[in-house]
Amino acid sequence: MIAYQSIIDDIAKTSRKVANKGVVASYIPELAVNNIDKFGIHLVDANNNNYSTGDALDSFSIQSISKVLTLALSFSLVGDDLWKRIDVEPSGDPFNHLSLLEFENGIPRNPFINAGAIVIADILVSHLKNPKEDFLNFIQELTNDTTIQYNEKVALSEKNTGFRNYAAANLLKSYGNLHNDVDTVLDFYFHQCSLEMNCKQLANAFFIFMNHGKCQRGKSYLNINQVKRINALMLTCGFYDEAGEFAFEVGLPGKSGVGGGIVALLPNTYCVATWSPGLNPKGNSKLGMAALEELTTKTKQSIF
Amino acid sequence: MIAYQSIIDDIAKTSRKVANKGVVASYIPELAVNNIDKFGIHLVDANNNNYSTGDALDSFSIQSISKVLTLALSFSLVGDDLWKRIDVEPSGDPFNHLSLLEFENGIPRNPFINAGAIVIADILVSHLKNPKEDFLNFIQELTNDTTIQYNEKVALSEKNTGFRNYAAANLLKSYGNLHNDVDTVLDFYFHQCSLEMNCKQLANAFFIFMNHGKCQRGKSYLNINQVKRINALMLTCGFYDEAGEFAFEVGLPGKSGVGGGIVALLPNTYCVATWSPGLNPKGNSKLGMAALEELTTKTKQSIF
Amino acid sequence: MIAYQSIIDDIAKTSRKVANKGVVASYIPELAVNNIDKFGIHLVDANNNNYSTGDALDSFSIQSISKVLTLALSFSLVGDDLWKRIDVEPSGDPFNHLSLLEFENGIPRNPFINAGAIVIADILVSHLKNPKEDFLNFIQELTNDTTIQYNEKVALSEKNTGFRNYAAANLLKSYGNLHNDVDTVLDFYFHQCSLEMNCKQLANAFFIFMNHGKCQRGKSYLNINQVKRINALMLTCGFYDEAGEFAFEVGLPGKSGVGGGIVALLPNTYCVATWSPGLNPKGNSKLGMAALEELTTKTKQSIF
Amino acid sequence: MIAYQSIIDDIAKTSRKVANKGVVASYIPELAVNNIDKFGIHLVDANNNNYSTGDALDSFSIQSISKVLTLALSFSLVGDDLWKRIDVEPSGDPFNHLSLLEFENGIPRNPFINAGAIVIADILVSHLKNPKEDFLNFIQELTNDTTIQYNEKVALSEKNTGFRNYAAANLLKSYGNLHNDVDTVLDFYFHQCSLEMNCKQLANAFFIFMNHGKCQRGKSYLNINQVKRINALMLTCGFYDEAGEFAFEVGLPGKSGVGGGIVALLPNTYCVATWSPGLNPKGNSKLGMAALEELTTKTKQSIF
Repeated sequence: MIAYQSIIDDIAKTSRKVANKGVVASYIPELAVNNIDKFGIHLVDANNNNYSTGDALDSFSIQSISKVLTLALSFSLVGDDLWKRIDVEPSGDPFNHLSLLEFENGIPRNPFINAGAIVIADILVSHLKNPKEDFLNFIQELTNDTTIQYNEKVALSEKNTGFRNYAAANLLKSYGNLHNDVDTVLDFYFHQCSLEMNCKQLANAFFIFMNHGKCQRGKSYLNINQVKRINALMLTCGFYDEAGEFAFEVGLPGKSGVGGGIVALLPNTYCVATWSPGLNPKGNSKLGMAALEELTTKTKQSIF
Repeated sequence: MIAYQSIIDDIAKTSRKVANKGVVASYIPELAVNNIDKFGIHLVDANNNNYSTGDALDSFSIQSISKVLTLALSFSLVGDDLWKRIDVEPSGDPFNHLSLLEFENGIPRNPFINAGAIVIADILVSHLKNPKEDFLNFIQELTNDTTIQYNEKVALSEKNTGFRNYAAANLLKSYGNLHNDVDTVLDFYFHQCSLEMNCKQLANAFFIFMNHGKCQRGKSYLNINQVKRINALMLTCGFYDEAGEFAFEVGLPGKSGVGGGIVALLPNTYCVATWSPGLNPKGNSKLGMAALEELTTKTKQSIF
Repeated sequence: MIAYQSIIDDIAKTSRKVANKGVVASYIPELAVNNIDKFGIHLVDANNNNYSTGDALDSFSIQSISKVLTLALSFSLVGDDLWKRIDVEPSGDPFNHLSLLEFENGIPRNPFINAGAIVIADILVSHLKNPKEDFLNFIQELTNDTTIQYNEKVALSEKNTGFRNYAAANLLKSYGNLHNDVDTVLDFYFHQCSLEMNCKQLANAFFIFMNHGKCQRGKSYLNINQVKRINALMLTCGFYDEAGEFAFEVGLPGKSGVGGGIVALLPNTYCVATWSPGLNPKGNSKLGMAALEELTTKTKQSIF
Repeated sequence: MIAYQSIIDDIAKTSRKVANKGVVASYIPELAVNNIDKFGIHLVDANNNNYSTGDALDSFSIQSISKVLTLALSFSLVGDDLWKRIDVEPSGDPFNHLSLLEFENGIPRNPFINAGAIVIADILVSHLKNPKEDFLNFIQELTNDTTIQYNEKVALSEKNTGFRNYAAANLLKSYGNLHNDVDTVLDFYFHQCSLEMNCKQLANAFFIFMNHGKCQRGKSYLNINQVKRINALMLTCGFYDEAGEFAFEVGLPGKSGVGGGIVALLPNTYCVATWSPGLNPKGNSKLGMAALEELTTKTKQSIF
């Protein structure tokens, strides 16, 4: 039996003492107000035991973490047809996601670069009756928590500054790999990124990826092969161009967001979410990355 | 005294016999209806002597040829400040204009790739009171011909299918290199490309580039250094990734458009415009390129 | 208890019936003679139980699989200093390994692209007294099998046709990231790739990566963190630009070679080696990839 | 009649007063000893009138300027077959010459990037009986000056540090676009670059490019079309990734070398060579570039 509580408490203690906590994202005002000193961890194990430390119940903008959840929902809706429109290879570099799109005829490298997530959003817009409501319901159901909501101000700010995403969506459209109109798809996309959740809710939402597709209440959302595939994608592509580094240092499938959150999981064992708003130069939470490395070192557990 | 009339008549004769005339652009219906057999040449020399052959008085969509004219107008308005926002190097490749934009922090490689022309359009939108009217007046004045007009249907078709241009404009916006809003700038840009002109009007519009900045009626639009720079740009960047080939085979500054037009000029000597709607695989008029090569070979004149 | 023997027998049976077995590598004559119908699997579990099927005792050229073994030896010799000279990110694309080298100042993306493996070879040449002998001893020790040898003919053929590797080594040299001379390093590199091993020997050589760094006889070569890192690299970079696909379909760390071999492993559980000389268009063994996917599906085991 | 002598004297005077004269190349010791204060210009007009100023009779290493002369000789030997092995497009960027080679199946973008010049060297090695002697004779004949020699020390230094050129040659070899062995071709290439000439000799050697292929004594080396093509290449590709800038600022075909030399020409009018060893960040002579801009501004002559 591993003493998760004392381990995460120790990590939180260490983290609070770090002088350089990274830089809070400031490209929209709503993220810039994040307090650099916030730090939380929540871990839920396979037996539904929950362990929290620090600001684990403070909500924050989940941003790109939402891409795993939209991938899960779209995968459950369309199955392997998904992979006709998106590839599963790491993108290699941060700055060239658009250029890679051009080389490869409009097929994004993977579902976690923005262009790929926009194709996923397009699929949900096509298959859901009320995309924004239906996706929110899916999240509320996964977490058994109806308090989770979009932050409309964040969604609007993203829309007003999201020129790079408009560029990607238009480029996809030029290749015929966006079936709905640009504005509708991006409206959905900016909303999914604006979801506000806390560490506890995130860890519980990702329970299905640790538990062969079943949520905590036993409902099945994905089959075992689909979960394997999503976990493999998180491991190889979940941290922008730092994915190799994360697999190498931490050794868990995971996903980060520019709001400072990270979720990671050890299959059959636990899900963990961290929050610390300061980012490293690659755009991943600086203390969150360190915390997860420490967790896997102290528990001597990883997928490898 | 060179017998321009008999030379261009000979070229037209040869051209009509060519079996493979290339492929008419069909990405918008308005261009697709172009008759593959149309062929015209118009040459005006430094003494204002005019020589025509074939369909030289048929109007067609000038498309990218307009980029030289917007460059000229914006250069006359803002001078060398232009080069803070656009570079003057060849782009090397057709498929990577967006990726090059990403590598170089939002500074387009030159004013003739789409991204560069969109920045030029942005400058005109900023500096002209009524951008579309004022630019049209400039063209009518250069050619002394008030019948020249935009084709609104073409402009609308471009707008409805121009996703790649929307992508470029949004990417520029993300780098802060587009000062007006995307829709306004692209509305201007799609209009400039929709201009309908015939070979005679085009040859006369480009008279200023052959004549140190002065039009046929003696009015000065650009100084001698500005003309030198625009001509250098036409030579190095005027034919997409076939610019080197054109400089190499023809040896004249020039500019092509996807509507099948080409304008080229020999400083102090002549301007020539050709029209043949069939394009080669690089997007330049197949017979137009051949005609200009033949012209420079037969006249034994080029800048080199 | 999983019935590995009947599972691999079934896989071998299925594989023999496949009509399209891929294409045997033919860039050197020694590989071209491989019989397309050869097929073998060897699995060794954590308790040292061995399971074989088909041509598991036929030797073949291990080629790039050797890169994991040189990485292990150099990692044990120089520790984390290794990562000052090589990165740990997937390379994204097959064709651009040299161009990526140029963008990133001579630091190869990872130890499994050729440029990275050449840096590893350089490290071994610097740190071993008799590089070729010492590396061979290491392999013989890992496998407890002194019959394993280099194939001098293969090494010579590689040398005579390895212009791309000479290009990479010289480029590394130009960046100061090759400390010994090009010919010496490549002589070692071509020898490591020429090693001949069979499936049984390979599975046993990789036992250390499944067993926290300890070989079957209990000797420790790497610590638990080092093994985690090597496994993470195999998962993210072990299959050229098909690494994402392999992680996604199979879900095991592994490494392929152009001789048709693949080794993969499930930590704490088993190592498996397959051999089928026919390659898919990405250069990985076609039937080997399929065999491993079937193995993980039938055993319902993967790291995810 | 233009007063060339007083113009170049004025330019020399201005140049000597410039504080920042750029940085002398130091990648080999033989170049590093160049005196930053050296400055020379030599101009020869179409009537064989010669004008000199400053250190115009000091010899220096012509380096990449030799690429135009090997191109001329190989073009005269094999004609348009040359273009099956080399393209004529600008390369766009300095750092990606190797990567462009990889994208385009071993066909260098143009004869003036290193990879292209190495293919030219390969052609000369194939077609000349005694390549080094024969090429030297060609230069001595062009200039009517038998004192011109290779600098063996420079050639040896280039060989010992030319890893990037070895990389390019091996990459070409891997694509089948190098017919002789790497060492032989590069030995020739390093010698051609080590040629020592002064401004007067260079200006006279380039006389053929200004004079339709005929040298000063009336002997024809190239036909008028071949000269047109070489001049076009100099204009579009003669100054690395500053070619556009040079065409734009100066408006003459020309070629620079890392030894600080530049040669440029106005067809039918003059050839001019400058020497100032300090380079700008793009690797072109800083004062040489400025001198040529001033020359074309003061003479109001350019090809545009």
